[in-house]
Amino acid sequence: MFTRIDHIGIACRDLDAAVEFYRRTYGFEVAHEEVNEEQGVREAMLRVSGTDDGGASYLQLLEPVRDDSPVAKFLERNGEGVHHVAFGTDDVRAASESVAGRGVRVLDAEPRPGSMGSRIAFLHPKDCGGVLTELVQSAEVRRHE
Amino acid sequence: MFTRIDHIGIACRDLDAAVEFYRRTYGFEVAHEEVNEEQGVREAMLRVSGTDDGGASYLQLLEPVRDDSPVAKFLERNGEGVHHVAFGTDDVRAASESVAGRGVRVLDAEPRPGSMGSRIAFLHPKDCGGVLTELVQSAEVRRHE
Repeated sequence: MFTRIDHIGIACRDLDAAVEFYRRTYGFEVAHEEVNEEQGVREAMLRVSGTDDGGASYLQLLEPVRDDSPVAKFLERNGEGVHHVAFGTDDVRAASESVAGRGVRVLDAEPRPGSMGSRIAFLHPKDCGGVLTELVQSAEVRRHE
Repeated sequence: MFTRIDHIGIACRDLDAAVEFYRRTYGFEVAHEEVNEEQGVREAMLRVSGTDDGGASYLQLLEPVRDDSPVAKFLERNGEGVHHVAFGTDDVRAASESVAGRGVRVLDAEPRPGSMGSRIAFLHPKDCGGVLTELVQSAEVRRHE
């Protein structure tokens, strides 16, 4: 049901500088940029590799666009660094239900819009060994629903 | 030169409990376990998927085996959670030199032993936007050197 590391979410104060760092240092290129108003972030997806489930793994660089966004609060508490980890699934609703059935609190009862047209649900980090964890169903998979 | 997310390193206080959590919740299975005396950790590698460079992506669960290990100090400061991110390369020495040439401090001048016979080098998190970053050349690739 969980078939790839979809992405690693990294909080940064300056998205353009972070994009340039990852491009220059590792050669990772931007596949997509967007503003997610609901989450209060400007973000870039940098593709790292394809995965054997037909998907891909990305780095997701996140810059807050308002002071009360979760990523702004994360930066205030922790400084820049890894914000969350996301696992890819072909059915985020079934995956959420499965995880909830194992006693993990799902923060999004209803899956909501993520990067690049995906649907996502976050899990409570206290139920996941301190790791803020996201479940992702990519847009490609959604088209076959 | 950097062709996959090789693994996400996650610090935990109880390795067996963490392994059981990831198995039960997501279905990720242990591909390998070892004690790395040099780094003072007991670790498990959970395979998530194959990657299109011929490698794979793992979760690396890390439990300290002594109080003065870097992972023990991390847990003291931060609690459980993501400890580092590792990118796969086919030549860790050349990759280290390339990264150093871009002004990033490489903490291991000489690549050292990592999980499953790999060779690794860590980068200074202050030069990597707060992300403790590891470069990994897997044992499979080493055999062709």
